[in-house]
Amino acid sequence: MIIVTGCAGFIGSTLVDRLLADGETVVGIDNFSTGQQRFLEGALANERFRLIEGDLLDLDGLKGWCAGGHTVFHLAANADVRFGTEHPRRDLEQNTIVTYNVLEAMRANNIKCIAFSSTGSVYGDTDQIPTPEAARFPIQTSLYAASKLACEGLIAAYCEGFGFQGYIFRFVSILGERYTHGHVFDFYRSLSTDPSTLRVLGDGHQRKSYLYIQDCLDAIFVALDKAKDKVNIFNLGVDGYVEVNDSIACICQRLGVSPRLEYTGGDRGWIGDSPFIFLDTKKIRSLGWAPKLGILEGVERTVDFLAANPWVFEARS
Amino acid sequence: MIIVTGCAGFIGSTLVDRLLADGETVVGIDNFSTGQQRFLEGALANERFRLIEGDLLDLDGLKGWCAGGHTVFHLAANADVRFGTEHPRRDLEQNTIVTYNVLEAMRANNIKCIAFSSTGSVYGDTDQIPTPEAARFPIQTSLYAASKLACEGLIAAYCEGFGFQGYIFRFVSILGERYTHGHVFDFYRSLSTDPSTLRVLGDGHQRKSYLYIQDCLDAIFVALDKAKDKVNIFNLGVDGYVEVNDSIACICQRLGVSPRLEYTGGDRGWIGDSPFIFLDTKKIRSLGWAPKLGILEGVERTVDFLAANPWVFEARS
Repeated sequence: MIIVTGCAGFIGSTLVDRLLADGETVVGIDNFSTGQQRFLEGALANERFRLIEGDLLDLDGLKGWCAGGHTVFHLAANADVRFGTEHPRRDLEQNTIVTYNVLEAMRANNIKCIAFSSTGSVYGDTDQIPTPEAARFPIQTSLYAASKLACEGLIAAYCEGFGFQGYIFRFVSILGERYTHGHVFDFYRSLSTDPSTLRVLGDGHQRKSYLYIQDCLDAIFVALDKAKDKVNIFNLGVDGYVEVNDSIACICQRLGVSPRLEYTGGDRGWIGDSPFIFLDTKKIRSLGWAPKLGILEGVERTVDFLAANPWVFEARS
Repeated sequence: MIIVTGCAGFIGSTLVDRLLADGETVVGIDNFSTGQQRFLEGALANERFRLIEGDLLDLDGLKGWCAGGHTVFHLAANADVRFGTEHPRRDLEQNTIVTYNVLEAMRANNIKCIAFSSTGSVYGDTDQIPTPEAARFPIQTSLYAASKLACEGLIAAYCEGFGFQGYIFRFVSILGERYTHGHVFDFYRSLSTDPSTLRVLGDGHQRKSYLYIQDCLDAIFVALDKAKDKVNIFNLGVDGYVEVNDSIACICQRLGVSPRLEYTGGDRGWIGDSPFIFLDTKKIRSLGWAPKLGILEGVERTVDFLAANPWVFEARS
């Protein structure tokens, strides 16, 4: 039995569907702080899926929910990256402390395998671009990335101390169906409301590297299948990047709108934003994985999903 | 006014004495979980020192205690490095969460400068030896080091997000007067009880680099005086190392004993122990600092302190 935390989220719910399609039995945990029940409609119709609506800060509960599992995909997180300085406790609680709880619940149930969604922003303001997994010792620039780095450290220490096996994935931004936060979401929502003007944080030249959700999950499965170290760390991303302006152009074309662009200026979208995340993915590629979709194809699929699912804007407002 | 957390500890109390000797006004905070009132006898006789017996997990209290400060030396920590796997929550609480509280208390009081005692063990099982500050992205091997890395990340994120200035010191083991835990302490205690036999964790060939307490504090003051980056990270250590066996020989000579040595075997003293911590200290040396004492001189001073202060063994038993 596989446990998926954050099972109602963008990545979590898509992972659950893939695991069920592969014949796995899955227990999903979500507190629905940002997860969407509708993303689980397919899963809930499958008798091999069980949903637990619970909070991962409840360690005693969590220990019970994990009973009988052999692997945990720990995807639950505060993904509200931009507003870390407005509520610094949230990253500590929802990321660092929750990850500790997940590890303790695993230990209580003798579950030894964990896959974890980290972030390319753990590299901070690196000048090694594309950034390999073995980049220089990073200096953190956001509370979000600092909390993800803390989680990585906890996982590695549990691998060493308690014989766990860990898979740590440092993502670029992920796009695709069920995507419900980030640049493309914000731009789409703004353009739906007012197609005449688009306010862009920063100068629009921030370079970003996106990965399509199914390519991301393919990479995770390849890593779990082929990598057998105690601690397995993989960058996940595409071999390229676009500027925020390129995403905007793609979205506008897809929507058939031509807004006036208003830039707030500066080279960062928000305090602590990494102006450029572009990851070296040779390591995961060496296992035979390659993404099937390019960045702008991912943007297009995302726009199409948002166009077909206007309810997500109400759910996330 | 300067705030020192962990003010009754080995390093904290020695720092307080130095700050008072320099004419500073100091508020010291300690919960006396491992700190010693006797280390503060001199400080308590000084009207520029105020002691707060309080717990740093009490964030509301801490915000009040920090009122009027301009700099925080955050030295309080779970220093019981060896037993992380026996109580994994302790490093999370006493190191990570407490450091978050210290940063929040600083923010509430508009205090912008923090000096923090990290550890050379954040480099994990590195093969870059001596290890520079900009070593490769580390993989953690102990809950203690993982928690210290989490603290470093929090501090750096507060520097970026809230305009703090941070000084992060990655120590080797520190020795000298008021030293109350670690190899030399354990060996001394064992030999005082039974000089005929000494049990040694590991194979005795673990290489260790120690720094004398006053040299450590000299380095901290030099860094605070001369380094002006947003985040200032310094390794602190000596240009050399000894084997655990060398320390033992030095202690035995000082004590005039010749025990039979019983090795537990293996290349590590305990699970997650770094078999070799030897730091590249070019960066702090480039600011004009150099240690005055060698490693074995530090061991000798430590043995002399322990011989003159048998009460510490009762206090720490």
